[in-house]
Amino acid sequence: MNYTFADNIRALKPSAIREILKLSSQPGIIPFSAGNPATDAFPAKEIAEISNSILTTNPAVALQYSTTEGYTPLRECMADYMQKKYSVGGEEDDILITSGAQQVMNLVTKVFVNTGDTIICEDPSFIGSLNAFRSFGANLVGVPIEADGIDLNALENAIKTSKNVRFLYTIPNFQNPSGITMSYQKRKSVYELCKKYGVLILEDNPYGEIRFSGEDIPTIKSMDTDGIVIYAGSFSKVLSPGMRVGYAIANKQIIAKLTVCKQTDDVHTTLWSQIVSHKFLTEYDFEKHLEKIRDIYRRKANLCMKLADEHLKPMVDYYPVEGGLFLWCKLPHGMDMMDFTMKALENKVAVVPGTAFSVDTSAKSDRFRINYSTPSDEQIINGMEILGKILK
Amino acid sequence: MNYTFADNIRALKPSAIREILKLSSQPGIIPFSAGNPATDAFPAKEIAEISNSILTTNPAVALQYSTTEGYTPLRECMADYMQKKYSVGGEEDDILITSGAQQVMNLVTKVFVNTGDTIICEDPSFIGSLNAFRSFGANLVGVPIEADGIDLNALENAIKTSKNVRFLYTIPNFQNPSGITMSYQKRKSVYELCKKYGVLILEDNPYGEIRFSGEDIPTIKSMDTDGIVIYAGSFSKVLSPGMRVGYAIANKQIIAKLTVCKQTDDVHTTLWSQIVSHKFLTEYDFEKHLEKIRDIYRRKANLCMKLADEHLKPMVDYYPVEGGLFLWCKLPHGMDMMDFTMKALENKVAVVPGTAFSVDTSAKSDRFRINYSTPSDEQIINGMEILGKILK
Repeated sequence: MNYTFADNIRALKPSAIREILKLSSQPGIIPFSAGNPATDAFPAKEIAEISNSILTTNPAVALQYSTTEGYTPLRECMADYMQKKYSVGGEEDDILITSGAQQVMNLVTKVFVNTGDTIICEDPSFIGSLNAFRSFGANLVGVPIEADGIDLNALENAIKTSKNVRFLYTIPNFQNPSGITMSYQKRKSVYELCKKYGVLILEDNPYGEIRFSGEDIPTIKSMDTDGIVIYAGSFSKVLSPGMRVGYAIANKQIIAKLTVCKQTDDVHTTLWSQIVSHKFLTEYDFEKHLEKIRDIYRRKANLCMKLADEHLKPMVDYYPVEGGLFLWCKLPHGMDMMDFTMKALENKVAVVPGTAFSVDTSAKSDRFRINYSTPSDEQIINGMEILGKILK
Repeated sequence: MNYTFADNIRALKPSAIREILKLSSQPGIIPFSAGNPATDAFPAKEIAEISNSILTTNPAVALQYSTTEGYTPLRECMADYMQKKYSVGGEEDDILITSGAQQVMNLVTKVFVNTGDTIICEDPSFIGSLNAFRSFGANLVGVPIEADGIDLNALENAIKTSKNVRFLYTIPNFQNPSGITMSYQKRKSVYELCKKYGVLILEDNPYGEIRFSGEDIPTIKSMDTDGIVIYAGSFSKVLSPGMRVGYAIANKQIIAKLTVCKQTDDVHTTLWSQIVSHKFLTEYDFEKHLEKIRDIYRRKANLCMKLADEHLKPMVDYYPVEGGLFLWCKLPHGMDMMDFTMKALENKVAVVPGTAFSVDTSAKSDRFRINYSTPSDEQIINGMEILGKILK
């Protein structure tokens, strides 16, 4: 049978890049292409303890239906944590627990975007979010990123010249894929600019807690006195992505609409995951756990950057990183990126071609992304050596 | 700030009924309004055992990212189970694991429906599905139900006179809220009719496995030689709703599109839930567990019907049920349903007003729904007596 799909969905295809990513999960391949947390970053023993305690003492609490808003103790404790630690969330705000932060991107788009409306994105940006926006027929307008974050002139120009701009999507900390962190000054300017034009900001901060050097910079949401920022957080990088727990903090009116939509989407987030997250936050030493994760990623990032300096420079340039999971590498002028990516794969090293993150899917790119959290230290050493050889 | 929401979402509000449902969860209220499985129907001990085994032997498998399609062993075992037991799924079909069956309704609508396209629904029908359809701006056309299922003449008329009919939504077994089961003959006719007009069928079967009397009737999907039926199944009623595991079985092309959309929605379903479901299905006696659940609901349904005969008849009529979780009750001519519902609530008994399930939200109704799975036997006895007194 020939099926007729909805207009917004017809154009949505698994990309050619998906094939590379599929290949990259095969045994024997060095997985620089993934975005998985390091396995030793999971507090597996603690999660097992908590889970056992829940399921043997009061299992019905974890197994029964729950409210769409989320498990109340987790909502309260996260709202408090984000307020005290990051000044995120005020009197007029509320919190919704979601099935991973990806669901925030999906729900925010559903709640605000009519087909053809514009979403402004950093270019390049996270493919999962871009595809969520595309799945509602949004018009994506990309704005280049500079070393200290989004290009402000280009941003203002995009807002002024695009049709029905609904929100700006930004990852201010250790942006995926570029690794760039937006400066404090730029965050303030972005906020003022969006306020001036009545444009909402969707601030996605999955990596904020894994800064392993330098100083924290206040979130854009912490500057939000006008209710224009929707903050998306996630437990995927600090606890476990398989548990699928994220959250949105925004003005109550926005959270109410997101909640109505989440109810029709998946009723509520898995309760076991929510209760485990809550107990880990309140009954264990979360700060110490974060320190442990930061140590792991600091070591891996430093190893990766040292080897990049050794094997890839000066041909390949990259932004040094202070957090997150990725190195964003630039090939020398005239070298074909897809050709390089395929050669790497032939030599058992999988990197992600830069085009995967382009707002314009037909754009060319001279970049590729390396992930250092998934591969072992040994794989990082071997992989970087192989990439160096291919370059020469 | 005044937020401008998307056109499809603006009309989507928490209904007045939601307020009644909120009140109904207060302590001291007899919860005839819920749809929760009975707590003693959860295999809590077994789930605790499985969970402990997963998290102490190979925790990374449950805690890491996974594929959108679902945990492969669960997909394979469910595809096999549904094929062998119910002849659901053929050579051309595939299976997608979802975050509850609710997500199937959401994804199918997203994949097939443009704003303004028609979805034909049994009227009354499950409010969660109706709201999912509404959230994409679908035009809902209701078709009345007879004692043996949907009215075929009205269905054909609806298909012929409605604009861009994309699919028929049906719950053939123990329909929610009516409790009605569609006859074999009618299932065949519905299939042929939809085939004739090129209309897809979304067959929602959350209660199929909890038939406690009478004979199983083949699913519509088992008749599907043309790839027009999308089957939605759920673990919520047979294992645990808090785990949020459901699945869709449909033609491969459809499953591929649903998968692309699920990726932008929540990446994948919680892995712990999927692994627990798989191990329960393969390492424990699932059939014996189903027998136990059926015993519980048979007892509760029979108790509820006996008391309805005693306290509510002949003023209130209802469809006798052979499975599922609900009694659909009809008030005598001239009695105001909302008035009755509010009086019941004042007397600490919460039932759901029939209007909650109407396709036309402004329609009147002389019905109310009683759930017998959530309340204890004692609550059923007291609650039915109270409803009887209010009637008199």
